[in-house]
Amino acid sequence: MKVKVKVPATSANLGPGFDVAGLAVTLYNTFTFELLDDGLEITGCPEQFCNAENMTYQAFVEGAKTCGLLFKGLRIECSGDVPYTRGLGSSSTCIVAGIVGAYAFVDRYDERQEILELATKIEGHPDNVAPAIFGGLTVSVMSDGVTTLNIPVKHDYRFVAMIPPFTLSTEKSRSVLPQVLSRSDAIANVSHLALMVASLINGYDDGLKLGFKDRLHQPYRGPLIEGFDEIMTILENDERVLGAYLSGAGPTIMAVIDATDTKGVVRIKEELGDLLKDWQVEKLELDMRGYTCDYE
Amino acid sequence: MKVKVKVPATSANLGPGFDVAGLAVTLYNTFTFELLDDGLEITGCPEQFCNAENMTYQAFVEGAKTCGLLFKGLRIECSGDVPYTRGLGSSSTCIVAGIVGAYAFVDRYDERQEILELATKIEGHPDNVAPAIFGGLTVSVMSDGVTTLNIPVKHDYRFVAMIPPFTLSTEKSRSVLPQVLSRSDAIANVSHLALMVASLINGYDDGLKLGFKDRLHQPYRGPLIEGFDEIMTILENDERVLGAYLSGAGPTIMAVIDATDTKGVVRIKEELGDLLKDWQVEKLELDMRGYTCDYE
Repeated sequence: MKVKVKVPATSANLGPGFDVAGLAVTLYNTFTFELLDDGLEITGCPEQFCNAENMTYQAFVEGAKTCGLLFKGLRIECSGDVPYTRGLGSSSTCIVAGIVGAYAFVDRYDERQEILELATKIEGHPDNVAPAIFGGLTVSVMSDGVTTLNIPVKHDYRFVAMIPPFTLSTEKSRSVLPQVLSRSDAIANVSHLALMVASLINGYDDGLKLGFKDRLHQPYRGPLIEGFDEIMTILENDERVLGAYLSGAGPTIMAVIDATDTKGVVRIKEELGDLLKDWQVEKLELDMRGYTCDYE
Repeated sequence: MKVKVKVPATSANLGPGFDVAGLAVTLYNTFTFELLDDGLEITGCPEQFCNAENMTYQAFVEGAKTCGLLFKGLRIECSGDVPYTRGLGSSSTCIVAGIVGAYAFVDRYDERQEILELATKIEGHPDNVAPAIFGGLTVSVMSDGVTTLNIPVKHDYRFVAMIPPFTLSTEKSRSVLPQVLSRSDAIANVSHLALMVASLINGYDDGLKLGFKDRLHQPYRGPLIEGFDEIMTILENDERVLGAYLSGAGPTIMAVIDATDTKGVVRIKEELGDLLKDWQVEKLELDMRGYTCDYE
């Protein structure tokens, strides 16, 4: 028997929602787990990850410990479309899949809150793993445990992921953040987050552009990404782009458009022209399920 | 013909929602306006406010200018239950009523967005005037104009207003706030606000206590209010108190309980004992209408 776990990519931070808000999108990695008599076999990912340091394997081991699964050997087959280290939660797909895979062998793959707690412990923060687990748009707060709640989104949006050909490590991206902020910047982020959430709930699209504005991380991370300011300015001036933000720790830039704006990607590519040279552009929907698990 | 405007008290800031979130409660001031051939007559409020500096009169004058009302004299009768300078939006009731009164004489009393813009200009910030105008729980952001949106609240709560016998001026209460904050405090407030809003929408009462926690203003204003820390600690330890926060610029402390907790006020008074000596305690509901206007 094999266990097949499909996990959505996620886009965290959402402008002012640094370390708090995240959403799942319709881009997936799939992991198939099979128990062996001994050894570890990993296929479908770059050579350097095919060993015991593999993040999915490590998470499987942690998951097995927590749920009481005893195993001798394991085969993991990886496949999928979530790009590595681009701010779309690829590491979260590995961590969530590993834990769910282990839990599935003791028929507990649907214990999402427990899986969230463990995944957050491994990942260090909940903003990517939470939407990968629950789907939709989530807000998460860590205190004793992790509290994650969904924000109901009224309209049907599309998320245009603009994925650069270069990577940006989360460590580097974190290292540029200041330790101290002005009170006005803090209040601005609180107010923008409130506006973003209220606009999404009420379907008030006119509130999103201001609602997505951030002063906690984007002003510091933007300079690490070639073309960031020019791209954001052009998206800001496109009246049909409802909002734009840096996805996760970057470097992917995400633009939000309405589902009826069917030519949005064509228009955005034209407007941005050479700024998107060699970038990958993906039009995504909100994933409302979170991970799925099947037996084969 | 007289114009009668009833405006709800409001409780702003809501923990982490400093300068952003506010809610209207079922405690009202009522103002009756009558045009005269000349002069200004004000009744029903302390002697020192019965002159042309009166806030309601000033707002009426501004409202009249904006909506094109020409008038020679005015009588204002004030009555109501909203205490002065206690953090329950009494000045907002005056400002909103004055503008609505003027607009009512040109049959435009229901132009709430326009009235919001003007009231915010006079008050300086929208967090009290917005719920006084629209009712319910609102979040507001100032940019070019004011954007206010409602947050749908799933459960039926009661708001226990603990109103001290002493006042706290908004100026003093603002002067103690620091200009600079740590990044972790800013992120905490963003995350708590997200949790508070998501908990209210989803009816997840367990999220409110953490969701109402604030690091932007309460830690600095608390020391100005005798007994603040002791009161907050006791409320924190009462399992049936869902959350507590400093209302507006204080000194009123607001506790949130469920509608079914009918003995909540009795219990809170017992728990707090002498800490509430000479304090006024009011059990309030969420006002969902905002101001009302009638002709007599």
